[in-house]
Amino acid sequence: MYGKIQTKKLLKKLEEKDISYLLVMNLDLPQLDPNFYYFTGLDGYEHSIALLGEKSRVYVPSFEVPRAKRESSIRDIRKTKAGLTKELGKFLNNKKVGINGEFMPVNFQKKLKRNKIKLVDASKIIEELRVIKNKEEVERIKKAASLSKKVLKKVDISKSETQIVADLIYEYARHGMKPGYDPIVAFDGDSTVPHFIPTNKRGGKTLLIDAAAAYKNYTADITRTFLLKPTKEMKKVYEIVKEVHDLAIDMVEPGVKASEIDNFMQDFLKKKGYSCPHSIGHGIGLLVHERPYISIKSDEILKEGMTFTIEPGVYITGKFGIRIEDDILVTKSGHKIL
Amino acid sequence: MYGKIQTKKLLKKLEEKDISYLLVMNLDLPQLDPNFYYFTGLDGYEHSIALLGEKSRVYVPSFEVPRAKRESSIRDIRKTKAGLTKELGKFLNNKKVGINGEFMPVNFQKKLKRNKIKLVDASKIIEELRVIKNKEEVERIKKAASLSKKVLKKVDISKSETQIVADLIYEYARHGMKPGYDPIVAFDGDSTVPHFIPTNKRGGKTLLIDAAAAYKNYTADITRTFLLKPTKEMKKVYEIVKEVHDLAIDMVEPGVKASEIDNFMQDFLKKKGYSCPHSIGHGIGLLVHERPYISIKSDEILKEGMTFTIEPGVYITGKFGIRIEDDILVTKSGHKIL
Repeated sequence: MYGKIQTKKLLKKLEEKDISYLLVMNLDLPQLDPNFYYFTGLDGYEHSIALLGEKSRVYVPSFEVPRAKRESSIRDIRKTKAGLTKELGKFLNNKKVGINGEFMPVNFQKKLKRNKIKLVDASKIIEELRVIKNKEEVERIKKAASLSKKVLKKVDISKSETQIVADLIYEYARHGMKPGYDPIVAFDGDSTVPHFIPTNKRGGKTLLIDAAAAYKNYTADITRTFLLKPTKEMKKVYEIVKEVHDLAIDMVEPGVKASEIDNFMQDFLKKKGYSCPHSIGHGIGLLVHERPYISIKSDEILKEGMTFTIEPGVYITGKFGIRIEDDILVTKSGHKIL
Repeated sequence: MYGKIQTKKLLKKLEEKDISYLLVMNLDLPQLDPNFYYFTGLDGYEHSIALLGEKSRVYVPSFEVPRAKRESSIRDIRKTKAGLTKELGKFLNNKKVGINGEFMPVNFQKKLKRNKIKLVDASKIIEELRVIKNKEEVERIKKAASLSKKVLKKVDISKSETQIVADLIYEYARHGMKPGYDPIVAFDGDSTVPHFIPTNKRGGKTLLIDAAAAYKNYTADITRTFLLKPTKEMKKVYEIVKEVHDLAIDMVEPGVKASEIDNFMQDFLKKKGYSCPHSIGHGIGLLVHERPYISIKSDEILKEGMTFTIEPGVYITGKFGIRIEDDILVTKSGHKIL
């Protein structure tokens, strides 16, 4: 059952740090901490709190209790009620409790503090777990990537940007999946605008589509650039981006520094007279941007089970942008394209 | 320009409380505070900070600066950089700065505190502004509700739950809109499960669809229940829910207590031998659940410019659920269905 492996690993880490419980929580949308799902397997629960420790328990709104009992890897399901933080205070009195300080809002921490709980930031512990994917997590990303690539192959690129977005999302939904992020569909110069919002434009010399599905909350992240009526320069840049994309992927194996790969891309492009304004990749999983960051600034060493994008891009402002992006898994002895 | 009216109103409130600046921020997805968009008009910016006061300024990632200059109602656009919290510290030194304590994570607050800024929680000030919609906000919700209802009228209900979801989302996307929340499409007993996740089930006696689009970030929230091959009881319950839905909407006008409306529904259903496990409604806007909550527990008094759902429901566990939901605006002298 999803969440079991994660929680088991967590307990070991908590013990090392002498932490009694990790408290992870969801508030209202959009403030759902992906770690709540990560450890409990409970998806889309609002106003819920999980206490993870020797004897884990989860508090969910009363109407969600039956569903939670079916879905959670944690047996002890309770309903939230007025005065819950007080009750938690009693239960956790004088215990050392880890929180995700990157997520918990200031006002909630205040309530807990009033109840004399010793809070420590455990966000680094969570990060260390999240960055290494287990088999099931890899399977999910693979399934999301596989559908995303299939859909990109058959999408009708003669339509408008908005209509192509509709077609992509429709295909994901038909397969019970959601977009992992807002798709970018951009002709020509539009593709040089980061976070471009699609319009009714139709046709052009190049078309960049950055779009992928999420399967059971794990997202892929895929970009393809289509050469429709390319100039010589467009063809040339495409070949350069494709080459550095392939060479960068070849570098991926355990022990390699993440920064080396980004460095390699920048050097390679510089020699050809170009540059890339962003780093070559980032981790994917429950979030579309997470560790490991494949960046010159990163001090991450690649390890088996990491999943991330490789996405070199060259953008000629106002004219066109070429980006090719794939999702990579670090394996025991090398890598796999998902 | 979007954000201007909101910021103007904010400045007045800050002055009253002797607060120099309000600091609102976006982190990585999904931790984007809707209030960042609300005050700046900047949509989908990660790792960005707005300081709102006599001389407002916004920090965004360097590659987003050109877009922000085009899109923001705030003129002073700067790029984020390493050591930004230190710079903020210098600038805000000994000033009283409001934060959204319901959103700002503990770890970020720690960084600011190190720099000797006097932080006060301003979440109530923000809430008071958000709960009253201006003309443009109402227009957006209306446009979202209008498309959502149109799509629900023509959706092919002979298809499977998953396929109907795909069709709904496709229609939103074709019009450049996104779903405001995950659609619920549920035949028969499925509709008695709150937050039901659609399956490949097709056909039944009743079909409940809770689905709506968001237009420019403002979401509608609409539910229709279709009687396909209804039993006598289903027809009877439908009529009861429809009646209480209409009567409850008729109650809406400035000065009415929100709790009265919920109370009325529960009384009405009780007399007929039924009950509703949730409150009759909730505010909608940038979030699908926000103030005002139309609940027995609420102490909210309805005011002109509030927008919320009226959504009575009766659920016969394992058999069927009937819910009818519309979006209501409180007007000067009464209400309007959006």
